[in-house]
Amino acid sequence: MTHPSGWHLHDGHLVREFAFDTFVNALKFVVQVGALAEEAQHHPDIDIRYRKVTLRLFTHDEGAVTAKDDALARAVNALSPA
Amino acid sequence: MTHPSGWHLHDGHLVREFAFDTFVNALKFVVQVGALAEEAQHHPDIDIRYRKVTLRLFTHDEGAVTAKDDALARAVNALSPA
Repeated sequence: MTHPSGWHLHDGHLVREFAFDTFVNALKFVVQVGALAEEAQHHPDIDIRYRKVTLRLFTHDEGAVTAKDDALARAVNALSPA
Repeated sequence: MTHPSGWHLHDGHLVREFAFDTFVNALKFVVQVGALAEEAQHHPDIDIRYRKVTLRLFTHDEGAVTAKDDALARAVNALSPA
């Protein structure tokens, strides 16, 4: 299974870490991710560590990473193509 | 050492979990915490798990929980007195 660019499987979850130049920009990214998550009604785990943000996707209803996770990962990548 | 209401020491960090009615409100809280953190130039670890937010405070320069952490914890409590 090929996952969106930059994302990898870790402990059965689809994970990507994003690094920013400032905490404020990291937080702006989280707000944008939050809007996508609400739109999709699919909410990643979000860990903020100063200027780094880790997103962790998983479809709890299915107990697995699904197309729903890939779709949200792709939408997030479109926010931050880095 | 007495810590601000609702906060406890866990693995040497000052920790509190906040629960909200919606993901959107959890995220609004995170943005408010972010503003306080920037103002203090002291940034908690922030974990968002759908409608729950865990904040973890620690003073890296001192390798300990300090008055700086207590001050930010108190400021956060003032946002969310629950």
